[in-house]
Amino acid sequence: MLESTIAAIRPLDDAAMAAARELQGRLTKPAGSLGALEELSVRLAGLAGACPPPLPERAAVAIFAGDHGVHAQGVSPWPQEVTAQMIANFLAGGAVVNAFARQAGAAVTVVDVGVATPIPTAGTEPLDPAGGASVLDPAGSARVLDPAVPRLVDANVRPGTADLTVTAALTRDEARAAVETGVRVADELIDAGAGILLTGDMGIGNTTPAAALIAAFTGADPAAATGRGTGVDDATYQRKVDVVRAALERHRPDPADPLGVLATVGGLEHAALAGLILGAAARRVPVLLDGVIAGSAALAAAAFAPDAVGAMVAGHRSAEPGATLALRKLGLDALIDLGLRLGEGTGALLALPVVTGAVRVLHEVATFDSAGVAEK
Amino acid sequence: MLESTIAAIRPLDDAAMAAARELQGRLTKPAGSLGALEELSVRLAGLAGACPPPLPERAAVAIFAGDHGVHAQGVSPWPQEVTAQMIANFLAGGAVVNAFARQAGAAVTVVDVGVATPIPTAGTEPLDPAGGASVLDPAGSARVLDPAVPRLVDANVRPGTADLTVTAALTRDEARAAVETGVRVADELIDAGAGILLTGDMGIGNTTPAAALIAAFTGADPAAATGRGTGVDDATYQRKVDVVRAALERHRPDPADPLGVLATVGGLEHAALAGLILGAAARRVPVLLDGVIAGSAALAAAAFAPDAVGAMVAGHRSAEPGATLALRKLGLDALIDLGLRLGEGTGALLALPVVTGAVRVLHEVATFDSAGVAEK
Repeated sequence: MLESTIAAIRPLDDAAMAAARELQGRLTKPAGSLGALEELSVRLAGLAGACPPPLPERAAVAIFAGDHGVHAQGVSPWPQEVTAQMIANFLAGGAVVNAFARQAGAAVTVVDVGVATPIPTAGTEPLDPAGGASVLDPAGSARVLDPAVPRLVDANVRPGTADLTVTAALTRDEARAAVETGVRVADELIDAGAGILLTGDMGIGNTTPAAALIAAFTGADPAAATGRGTGVDDATYQRKVDVVRAALERHRPDPADPLGVLATVGGLEHAALAGLILGAAARRVPVLLDGVIAGSAALAAAAFAPDAVGAMVAGHRSAEPGATLALRKLGLDALIDLGLRLGEGTGALLALPVVTGAVRVLHEVATFDSAGVAEK
Repeated sequence: MLESTIAAIRPLDDAAMAAARELQGRLTKPAGSLGALEELSVRLAGLAGACPPPLPERAAVAIFAGDHGVHAQGVSPWPQEVTAQMIANFLAGGAVVNAFARQAGAAVTVVDVGVATPIPTAGTEPLDPAGGASVLDPAGSARVLDPAVPRLVDANVRPGTADLTVTAALTRDEARAAVETGVRVADELIDAGAGILLTGDMGIGNTTPAAALIAAFTGADPAAATGRGTGVDDATYQRKVDVVRAALERHRPDPADPLGVLATVGGLEHAALAGLILGAAARRVPVLLDGVIAGSAALAAAAFAPDAVGAMVAGHRSAEPGATLALRKLGLDALIDLGLRLGEGTGALLALPVVTGAVRVLHEVATFDSAGVAEK
């Protein structure tokens, strides 16, 4: 299934991009005056294979949650239980991602892909193990994209990764299962009508595997790829860098084997996010990247399928240094750069109106001809 | 009336700012992880004198339009009639500002403060000459903020400025009339229920007086303050720089006399925008600045009343170099930086969800205590 998803990913459509460039030149504004929004609209036309590309009326943020064996190395000041506690907060609508999603009218789906401790909440929904069209929700797909009701999907591959300083974080089969979960979530959300997917993540300790992934895929030094995550002190930061360096030296992951990289030094939510991105790219639906976890997953997705980059929009530039390394390697410029380092999908949600606005211009703005405005 | 507005402008409220900082520290997210949004929420609490500050549910963009005698110097490749033609486009809903305003749910008010040629459109509404509570709209204030119906307000002070290379652009009385028009528009929109005002502008040739204003208020060299506006060639750009330099040498405006600066080297929409900002600041309502025209007007507003800066939020950093000089002088960081140089209010509208999101966090996000999430 992963292989067929990868095989379905194709380059951007040149004819649609040319049509979008030509249309931008006829709209009632000076040529080029919308800056980066113009090229964004052109890329989205190329992804859709149509000009204008569809307006993403319905948006869905998928928050993949997992825990990390490397937490035992003291890389985070937060107890591991906070992963599960924050999921309960997401489902109660109390987190920043909920506030931003309500404002943007985006649906929130939390996917437990590897949480280690019990989630203090009521029922969860199993992910359709057969994949394909969603049979998740007997009430029908409307609820899947209901912005008012965050959902929890149970797709737990294992209760947290192993400690990557001691052994591989995951087996290859586990990594594949997590990636394919991400693909299935993308399919489900798109089948339900989502015109754009947004990446989200939750996992205490997950900036450590993100740094390892970014170092593995970009060749950057662990010290350059590692940041302070949720805010660690100098001693913890040095420990994080040492842990990332030790993991890379132990496993020597091969960047040409993304499944191997994800298995040895990754995380379950990182792998699932790579799958979400691949799934969106295969369906030619844009995927708006959040921060450093998304950046590390996007590098894995691009290693699986280089053309997947065509579906990616960098929502924001996280304060985490690894995020900048990832975006540079992917050749993406971020839409928002406000020093956020929260994750959850918050930075992607802030950027959503910019993406929608870029597409809306192609749908709604008058041409010089139609508006009777003189040209220079 | 200008003097009483200036006298009403007060510093940010320290107690409300301290309360907002304290609340940010208790919300379910790592401290500081929302980056610039946290300090923005603190400033807006200080402006409102309350924590949380009111959520700006209703937004209004005011597009002040005027023409420029300096157009005769060949500073723009566009015919002057485009100012009036674009107003018709705004009223028909066909411009980029309309597309972005519809998306953001913001009302659009176009104020003819000095258009030189006939506006190809139906009726306009006179601005209440007495100021104060709105008597503009017999149908009541609901229509003032109807996002579906752009309005045109007739407040034409004179049909375009004089050529500032030959004489003062405006008399002091005309400049004052334009500033006071801006104050009255702010009052009207706030009386109708707007929780945030956004600046917009339209005026072929208006980046030339904006550059002169920015050079006058910041002391920057005309070459540093002048940009290519809607996209001029090298020869026209050099002519713009020469025109700005000649205007400053002829009038030697005193930055401590903002009315004199606006009169000699400004424009009617620049003066009215300064008034809008002062009016918003006096009412303690935030004003979201668009690009370089807004930046030049904001410098004038700050010269009238330094505490007016507390009401300003820099929506975006325009590609025009003068915009960056203005923001630096005002001590403001822009929320969006995507190379836009369109004006109309487009950059401010793109930033509106960021501002609303920053405030929404203080209203809607759970605390560690209330959500049962452990702290580090």
